[in-house]
Amino acid sequence: MSKLYAVIMAGGAGTRFWPASRPDRPKQLLPLAGQPGEPLLAATVRRILPICPAERILVVTANHLTAAMRAALPDLPAENFLSEPAPRNTAPCIGWATATLARRDPDAVVMVLPSDHFIADEAGFRSAVLEAAALTKSCAIATIGITPTRPETGYGYMEKGALLGGSAFEVKRFVEKPDRARAETYVTSGQYLWNSGMFFFRARAMSDMIGKHLPELARGIASIDRAAAAGNEAAELARVFPTLPAISIDHGVMEKADGVAMVAGNFGWSDVGSWQSSWELAAKDTDGNAAPPNAVLIDARGNLVSDLSSHPSGRVVALVGVHDLAVVITDDALLVIPRERAQDVRKALEALHDRKV
Amino acid sequence: MSKLYAVIMAGGAGTRFWPASRPDRPKQLLPLAGQPGEPLLAATVRRILPICPAERILVVTANHLTAAMRAALPDLPAENFLSEPAPRNTAPCIGWATATLARRDPDAVVMVLPSDHFIADEAGFRSAVLEAAALTKSCAIATIGITPTRPETGYGYMEKGALLGGSAFEVKRFVEKPDRARAETYVTSGQYLWNSGMFFFRARAMSDMIGKHLPELARGIASIDRAAAAGNEAAELARVFPTLPAISIDHGVMEKADGVAMVAGNFGWSDVGSWQSSWELAAKDTDGNAAPPNAVLIDARGNLVSDLSSHPSGRVVALVGVHDLAVVITDDALLVIPRERAQDVRKALEALHDRKV
Repeated sequence: MSKLYAVIMAGGAGTRFWPASRPDRPKQLLPLAGQPGEPLLAATVRRILPICPAERILVVTANHLTAAMRAALPDLPAENFLSEPAPRNTAPCIGWATATLARRDPDAVVMVLPSDHFIADEAGFRSAVLEAAALTKSCAIATIGITPTRPETGYGYMEKGALLGGSAFEVKRFVEKPDRARAETYVTSGQYLWNSGMFFFRARAMSDMIGKHLPELARGIASIDRAAAAGNEAAELARVFPTLPAISIDHGVMEKADGVAMVAGNFGWSDVGSWQSSWELAAKDTDGNAAPPNAVLIDARGNLVSDLSSHPSGRVVALVGVHDLAVVITDDALLVIPRERAQDVRKALEALHDRKV
Repeated sequence: MSKLYAVIMAGGAGTRFWPASRPDRPKQLLPLAGQPGEPLLAATVRRILPICPAERILVVTANHLTAAMRAALPDLPAENFLSEPAPRNTAPCIGWATATLARRDPDAVVMVLPSDHFIADEAGFRSAVLEAAALTKSCAIATIGITPTRPETGYGYMEKGALLGGSAFEVKRFVEKPDRARAETYVTSGQYLWNSGMFFFRARAMSDMIGKHLPELARGIASIDRAAAAGNEAAELARVFPTLPAISIDHGVMEKADGVAMVAGNFGWSDVGSWQSSWELAAKDTDGNAAPPNAVLIDARGNLVSDLSSHPSGRVVALVGVHDLAVVITDDALLVIPRERAQDVRKALEALHDRKV
């Protein structure tokens, strides 16, 4: 039986969690949801360990983040961290990782997972993963669709086709981020699921699809693959990878492929998109405050306090008479913003960038 | 002509500026109003230097604060810092400081000043001081009364008696903190001034008054004074001072004395009683924010940002969409509170104390 491998895409930067997230400490390295202190990346790995041992988990990230990624995942073999010389979107990332796995195991079944999401029901998630992995016997690509809980306009949707058995359906079509009205009809219809950004495929099938739909990418990856087989990957990677076409796996392969299937998942998924969402997922006291245990909260309701400085236990945060704020502290910054305006974090970041120009 | 000396009372603790104020860093050591970065104590000294040279300025403080006081006032002679072995209210403090000055100069004219107030019109203040000092030729004690600008219930008032010339009046009577209705009639009448806590007297006259009204205190001070004259003050001070009657100069002397005069002052005085008051006195941008120059303020109005940590310039404070807050940062604490609830700072402090019990 084919073995299941994981490719965790951990190259993202992310600006919506400033001041906690920084170029050298992106969102996936932050404990923004779930177990206190556990980075989203570490939770991503921990969740799949029961069905995918550490030696079969690859992490693809950026050169300058590799050391931090290794530190966050000390149980993964050093050679399982792939460092992209330049960001080229998801198709080159997945193509390269797939070629790397195919050299180790030509029969590999691969799951590609984002590194910065939250999942409440981890056993339910693993069931969906195994169901999606099994679909790769008969389908070119499988994915997991999330049963929508609100008319979200920030996600892509997938329309259900024929039932394939269990919780699996054909994907009839992909839909880009819809407007509010359309999102509402999607949710009401019960026929649309959120695109979770998780993909499942046989390594061989993905190589074939890239060869068919993205021949230029296929040539570049083949060149890197040959160099790797000859023990000389680094130089060729540095030369070729930055020239690969920067295209997403969705646009480059998924939407062109025949036989895309999806498993309908309902396991408490969130992409943890903002401080608001981090608050929603956090453990809260009876006044709705998500704050460190030593915080002083007086007539304070619905606040999120996140202390990501070097010595958070050395600081007491006192909120008196304030409501529904996000208060975020790091060694070099402090942000105070109403939770519901969390998307305006980018305005603060833009103001800082303007200043430095 | 008699020389003018200053006794600055700097032993206070103060809890209304938590987390900035601490037992070892009381309010008078903080830059809460006026020139950026200048502690209130340093401003108190700087204001009087044109009329009272450094060698004639005494600072009375607590043992554990003496080093910090000296550091804040490097231009004052080391022997001008008097350290109380125990807090015994203002009468023992003033009695001891007066005896100390009388040994140096039996004809000394003494002004006693709080160390933690703000004054906008410093030249106007110095004029009032000189007028009050001159009154000590004919009056036992002079004080400065502040023309009230609002029906404040947190201050004592003094009723004007006969005009003595210039801006000077007899004090007809002292009134304890009034209720709101009475404070309003006081302000409307134009006959009442705020008690500023500044006193002016000849050293000899104060010794006589303490001898008459507080004989027990007079005996203790005489004993310390004899030891000091013999070069052995420290041991006697440690033995006697903690046993002195803990009474205020107001109750113990002022209210019993004959011939108390006051100068009516109108020089932009504030006792800087809370973060609200610190905001009122601070320089503000067009949106009413008083914040460090590197702060990021987006749709933020009327906020006070005070960074009293060790390296404030190393931290960016970003406020997005919040209004009328006080945000105070220190190395070990962060406070967020609506300005208008500034008096509730003590609740945060109580909660912290309860926790430590």
